[in-house]
Amino acid sequence: MSKSYRRLDKNQAAVLLVDHQAGLLSLVRDIEPDKFKNNVLALADMAKYFQLPTILTTSFENGPNGPIVPELKQAFPDAPFIARPGQINAWDNEDFVKAVKATGKKQLIVAGVVTEVCVAFPVLSAIEEGFEVFVITDASGTFNAMTRDAAWQRMQAAGAQLMTWFGAACELHRDWRNDVEGLGALFSNHIPDYRNLITSYTTRQNNK
Amino acid sequence: MSKSYRRLDKNQAAVLLVDHQAGLLSLVRDIEPDKFKNNVLALADMAKYFQLPTILTTSFENGPNGPIVPELKQAFPDAPFIARPGQINAWDNEDFVKAVKATGKKQLIVAGVVTEVCVAFPVLSAIEEGFEVFVITDASGTFNAMTRDAAWQRMQAAGAQLMTWFGAACELHRDWRNDVEGLGALFSNHIPDYRNLITSYTTRQNNK
Amino acid sequence: MSKSYRRLDKNQAAVLLVDHQAGLLSLVRDIEPDKFKNNVLALADMAKYFQLPTILTTSFENGPNGPIVPELKQAFPDAPFIARPGQINAWDNEDFVKAVKATGKKQLIVAGVVTEVCVAFPVLSAIEEGFEVFVITDASGTFNAMTRDAAWQRMQAAGAQLMTWFGAACELHRDWRNDVEGLGALFSNHIPDYRNLITSYTTRQNNK
Amino acid sequence: MSKSYRRLDKNQAAVLLVDHQAGLLSLVRDIEPDKFKNNVLALADMAKYFQLPTILTTSFENGPNGPIVPELKQAFPDAPFIARPGQINAWDNEDFVKAVKATGKKQLIVAGVVTEVCVAFPVLSAIEEGFEVFVITDASGTFNAMTRDAAWQRMQAAGAQLMTWFGAACELHRDWRNDVEGLGALFSNHIPDYRNLITSYTTRQNNK
Amino acid sequence: MSKSYRRLDKNQAAVLLVDHQAGLLSLVRDIEPDKFKNNVLALADMAKYFQLPTILTTSFENGPNGPIVPELKQAFPDAPFIARPGQINAWDNEDFVKAVKATGKKQLIVAGVVTEVCVAFPVLSAIEEGFEVFVITDASGTFNAMTRDAAWQRMQAAGAQLMTWFGAACELHRDWRNDVEGLGALFSNHIPDYRNLITSYTTRQNNK
Amino acid sequence: MSKSYRRLDKNQAAVLLVDHQAGLLSLVRDIEPDKFKNNVLALADMAKYFQLPTILTTSFENGPNGPIVPELKQAFPDAPFIARPGQINAWDNEDFVKAVKATGKKQLIVAGVVTEVCVAFPVLSAIEEGFEVFVITDASGTFNAMTRDAAWQRMQAAGAQLMTWFGAACELHRDWRNDVEGLGALFSNHIPDYRNLITSYTTRQNNK
Amino acid sequence: MSKSYRRLDKNQAAVLLVDHQAGLLSLVRDIEPDKFKNNVLALADMAKYFQLPTILTTSFENGPNGPIVPELKQAFPDAPFIARPGQINAWDNEDFVKAVKATGKKQLIVAGVVTEVCVAFPVLSAIEEGFEVFVITDASGTFNAMTRDAAWQRMQAAGAQLMTWFGAACELHRDWRNDVEGLGALFSNHIPDYRNLITSYTTRQNNK
Amino acid sequence: MSKSYRRLDKNQAAVLLVDHQAGLLSLVRDIEPDKFKNNVLALADMAKYFQLPTILTTSFENGPNGPIVPELKQAFPDAPFIARPGQINAWDNEDFVKAVKATGKKQLIVAGVVTEVCVAFPVLSAIEEGFEVFVITDASGTFNAMTRDAAWQRMQAAGAQLMTWFGAACELHRDWRNDVEGLGALFSNHIPDYRNLITSYTTRQNNK
Repeated sequence: MSKSYRRLDKNQAAVLLVDHQAGLLSLVRDIEPDKFKNNVLALADMAKYFQLPTILTTSFENGPNGPIVPELKQAFPDAPFIARPGQINAWDNEDFVKAVKATGKKQLIVAGVVTEVCVAFPVLSAIEEGFEVFVITDASGTFNAMTRDAAWQRMQAAGAQLMTWFGAACELHRDWRNDVEGLGALFSNHIPDYRNLITSYTTRQNNK
Repeated sequence: MSKSYRRLDKNQAAVLLVDHQAGLLSLVRDIEPDKFKNNVLALADMAKYFQLPTILTTSFENGPNGPIVPELKQAFPDAPFIARPGQINAWDNEDFVKAVKATGKKQLIVAGVVTEVCVAFPVLSAIEEGFEVFVITDASGTFNAMTRDAAWQRMQAAGAQLMTWFGAACELHRDWRNDVEGLGALFSNHIPDYRNLITSYTTRQNNK
Repeated sequence: MSKSYRRLDKNQAAVLLVDHQAGLLSLVRDIEPDKFKNNVLALADMAKYFQLPTILTTSFENGPNGPIVPELKQAFPDAPFIARPGQINAWDNEDFVKAVKATGKKQLIVAGVVTEVCVAFPVLSAIEEGFEVFVITDASGTFNAMTRDAAWQRMQAAGAQLMTWFGAACELHRDWRNDVEGLGALFSNHIPDYRNLITSYTTRQNNK
Repeated sequence: MSKSYRRLDKNQAAVLLVDHQAGLLSLVRDIEPDKFKNNVLALADMAKYFQLPTILTTSFENGPNGPIVPELKQAFPDAPFIARPGQINAWDNEDFVKAVKATGKKQLIVAGVVTEVCVAFPVLSAIEEGFEVFVITDASGTFNAMTRDAAWQRMQAAGAQLMTWFGAACELHRDWRNDVEGLGALFSNHIPDYRNLITSYTTRQNNK
Repeated sequence: MSKSYRRLDKNQAAVLLVDHQAGLLSLVRDIEPDKFKNNVLALADMAKYFQLPTILTTSFENGPNGPIVPELKQAFPDAPFIARPGQINAWDNEDFVKAVKATGKKQLIVAGVVTEVCVAFPVLSAIEEGFEVFVITDASGTFNAMTRDAAWQRMQAAGAQLMTWFGAACELHRDWRNDVEGLGALFSNHIPDYRNLITSYTTRQNNK
Repeated sequence: MSKSYRRLDKNQAAVLLVDHQAGLLSLVRDIEPDKFKNNVLALADMAKYFQLPTILTTSFENGPNGPIVPELKQAFPDAPFIARPGQINAWDNEDFVKAVKATGKKQLIVAGVVTEVCVAFPVLSAIEEGFEVFVITDASGTFNAMTRDAAWQRMQAAGAQLMTWFGAACELHRDWRNDVEGLGALFSNHIPDYRNLITSYTTRQNNK
Repeated sequence: MSKSYRRLDKNQAAVLLVDHQAGLLSLVRDIEPDKFKNNVLALADMAKYFQLPTILTTSFENGPNGPIVPELKQAFPDAPFIARPGQINAWDNEDFVKAVKATGKKQLIVAGVVTEVCVAFPVLSAIEEGFEVFVITDASGTFNAMTRDAAWQRMQAAGAQLMTWFGAACELHRDWRNDVEGLGALFSNHIPDYRNLITSYTTRQNNK
Repeated sequence: MSKSYRRLDKNQAAVLLVDHQAGLLSLVRDIEPDKFKNNVLALADMAKYFQLPTILTTSFENGPNGPIVPELKQAFPDAPFIARPGQINAWDNEDFVKAVKATGKKQLIVAGVVTEVCVAFPVLSAIEEGFEVFVITDASGTFNAMTRDAAWQRMQAAGAQLMTWFGAACELHRDWRNDVEGLGALFSNHIPDYRNLITSYTTRQNNK
């Protein structure tokens, strides 16, 4: 009954951020806005921290969907940015797939808006092509919990692994000794409870 | 570990609307009535928009279950309408199966009331016969969330794919360029948040 | 211990619709969008049905708040429409107060977005000036339930009466015999469960 | 700061059951159907147990609202039954008010469907006329919790006391010694947890 | 991708009611007591209606777990009743397994208290021995939703099918024409919303 | 608009623990059992810590309601213990009222099972007699949240102040310097999050 | 029935931030951490934006309660900072009351951790002394919703007004024209949905 | 379709308690603190009761994560205790794996904080090496329900069995007759509802 553990590897992984656009974000109601914003930015910071190749894509930026969230654009000024002319499934866009394959990575970390479309479609396509896919559930959002649950089940049945940005960061880092400061800063900036622990700890250390 | 992506194809899909009857709707309590009504009508509009063959069926219209929701009848005046004389599983009704097979489609998009019976039974039967089945979860309703969750798990374990009307529409359409206006109208009519985006966008365009 | 029953009177009441704007609606998360849209349109239909003087007002339509929901504008083409140049509390705008007083009514039915600001502020001001105020809670929306609860408590402590559009319609109508068809249509158009009752009833009547 | 305790008195109280009709019950979604049915029947049993004068009333029984729940009709075959020809507020119906006053009671125990209309309107009217009013919240139902909360606040602000059938039964009974068997049977029939306690207790007593 | 539909068959099914005891019921908090009581009695009525062989079992009736719910004992006066002397998994009790096998049925419909133990253990054992197992989720209860969810996932992963009493009744009955009155009575007695439909329907039929 | 602050005073307060009996506790479902048990024991520890006169009372201990929770009996071996022969409202029992008045305190801290009866009735009676009453909401329990909400509103409308055991302890203690160790121990024993803070803090102090 | 509207006035108001300490924050569970952190920082930014006199206070910073959240300290480097030696109610600390009175303001905006103690106690004390008190509910936190609800009711019964940081900001600002940029920036920094509106709006303006 | 029942066996099982540290516990918000504390201690008591080899491990005890919960340390004074110098996945620590293998057991019962990292990572590693893994879901905690759900699905897809401490205890014990007193004490100490049953039962036995 043993089963191989497909584990995130910072040398094997790329990040795909799909359609985090200012208009589309108003559709997201399965997760509270303050938390969602924080999760998306945390995922971006994680990608930068581990220097993972990252690809941005949007759909119809000039229409009602609105422009990409500016913080993401600023975080990855040199990343491939594919403004799709119409394809709903990013994987149907040749440039996007080319950019993904150009990273040379076999593990894909995916998040986006909305979960059952902009995330699920390329996830299912990438699995079909043999990629290992990790969905960052808490940096992906959609209309309501019912829709999310159905989307999760569809992706998981296809072999996607459901994770969160925090779990992914831990699996990528492997060992705190690789860089205590860096990982601690990432967590402190995006997990208020963790920041409180550090604040209390540091204050006491300083008082010694 | 790659797995084939069974994807909705507008040339391969038919829609089955099972037992959306005025009396039975009073049993639906796992989804709020305003939202459920909207989802069912959105699914109908989607079927018409993509010109998918659609089949209506009811059970005991003259009894307490009540007549089919009039909007559905009006939406598909020429669709096969099978008023089943008694079979609970629509697939046990020969006329219904005949109508399904007459469409020549191998993908079935199914919604109905109540989820664990009127939807799940024909879904399981159709899978057994080799159809690819897509359940529109948010246009299907039942007594409570516990019942729904059990029904979803049973159907998914058998290979059904759980979707929503919005996800299905996106997967069928593939590319906005196929018809921006049409898909936009479908969304605007059934997603208030999307309509608001379009309202703001259009107003500003006109003000230029 | 007896206490006077301040009761809505269709000859004494005016309706104030405050800041139902396409942009601001994306802030509303204490009520589900399909239901909220339905409630706002139901309130508009109620106002028209009882021919209550109705006043529309918006804040910064040309900025990010966005334009008024088009359906409201269309429903009341001849109503006073006060596009406030900057006042957050509509009651701080002289034209708005003038329009309210010009109706000659002493009962004000108020709804808007967001509840604790655009609704609560003019409600508290109007009570101070001696108006009887009825808040239509389900056609008003805000960021989350905690915010709504605090706003309700503040308004109620000041003497506002908390109602819903359905309760208000019933209190205004008093007696079904005043117009069975009209009230039935209002309910059927905005309460799916009620429509189902009517569908079943009518079908059976016709089958006799 | 002392305040008089207005307490239910079995010699001073009458029960008003307003519009518990088969059609209207499908509108009730702020309480689960099995529980609501149980509560309404418990209230009826309580009224009979304490021999409280009870008045039934309905609105439009021959229309979509449907007939009164048969169990209530059977429970009170000789009670005044006022089928209102159109008045939404039962207190606007002279026969109803006459029947209430004919009981000679000053305390009114009220429940009905829907809470913010069929319950709240006569409650507010009765308070205005000097009655002490006790709302049985759990034998009253409406569209959703938001509507219920607003209705509760409006009634309480006017001086109504919010209770449940169980609390009312306890306040009426005062002392178990008045009839242990009778009150125990009432609770056992309508509170599964209490029945379980009695089952375990009785079994052990019998085994001694 | 076709998959066989393992379908309840009234000629192939037996019912196992495990540890519905007065004391243990106080542990059940993942489902509201009025609803749970109703579901358990509905399942019993269903078993009787379809004349399915039914087996009762309890654990430590003379201890704190308390006696079996009296209604179940009364419903099946002649059914095998195995009061287990100590085995937690009923399948570890030879008499129980003998009784199950003596029915000659290959489909087992199982419910009990608590879900993750008294239901899950014999379910997993029975599957191992080749039975087809159907768990009646809503006539089974446990400490909280988290516990239930974990138990459901464990059973489903082993091949159990998750159903409710209503779904099971529909799958067993197959066709309303087999007995409209009987099935209608079963539903009317245990589904308040369905009873209301029948009340409205019948009243109107009689008024014709 | 200033209003006097009626504040708990450890020299003016007595504690009344009403009907925390082993059987009745199975009725409590508005609060999770682990948390409720903890709250009741915390309240008992608080009463002992501040040496507040405490009175225990039960109803029908020898019947299905069951015996008082043993921990409470053990915590207050010398406290007045009034086993009421039948009065549902403890205040209707002369011995109980005598015991309350014998404390000479004017502030009453009350908790019990179930909230709307065993707590609310003596609370309303005590207010009528001029006592200042503080309800410990989280050491009181009842059937469900709806029942609790109605009971809270009734008590508050009569002038009762709604508190929790933690808030009461803080208001009684006034100043940490009165006894840091003692209050810290009370919190550490009953608030896991607080215990964690102390564990981390103490460990670090010891490591210095 | 008219009632005076006590309205926040930026020339009359001071802000009290009570016990937002790194340790105590781990006790807050009635509001999600990301949202709570955002609300507290938003309140701080609001106080600075309107240049309201602000007072910080903590309890036992060197013990398990931990240090004040660093961001607050940094935001108000020159504000009175009262590290209370032991008083639980900040109003029992003379220095704190002196600092409050030294502001010369009659309106107090209060937030803190935990709501029923660190907020409610000084709120009740300040009302007694004739201040107008506004509680910022969403920048105050406590153990759970039940505790919060009881605390809100106690404060409101004493005359406190329940608000949120957003509502307070709007009531203080009165008119957008006083400074569109400034208020817009405050909202954009702390309301993701509002920021999205501004992002979409600005992008389109720039594209013209 | 039969499937082998992998069943906990007290002779084959070891327990792994991962990172239950005072600081990390403040991150746990998917389960209420009183309940979580109780579950963790119950699992510890279970391990001791069945004399299962138990291994403790922590991460960064001297940093912000804080020391292990003292009760666990005291419960297992002689257990292997691996304070990991940095490895996030305990299975990446050789000493830990050695300790696990030294037990000679093939079944691993795992709980920890946080679920998706400290539990999921070693669970997936252990499965890969051929161990049978049982996750104690209710003695494991994490940031929120969404994160937990994703972690459960990932572990279950890999073959882990999801259980609770109560279910595990029952599966290990097999038969009450092995030791009624012992198992009863374990349950009575950690399940308030069960303790109440025993209290009522024992009291009555003693009264005979």
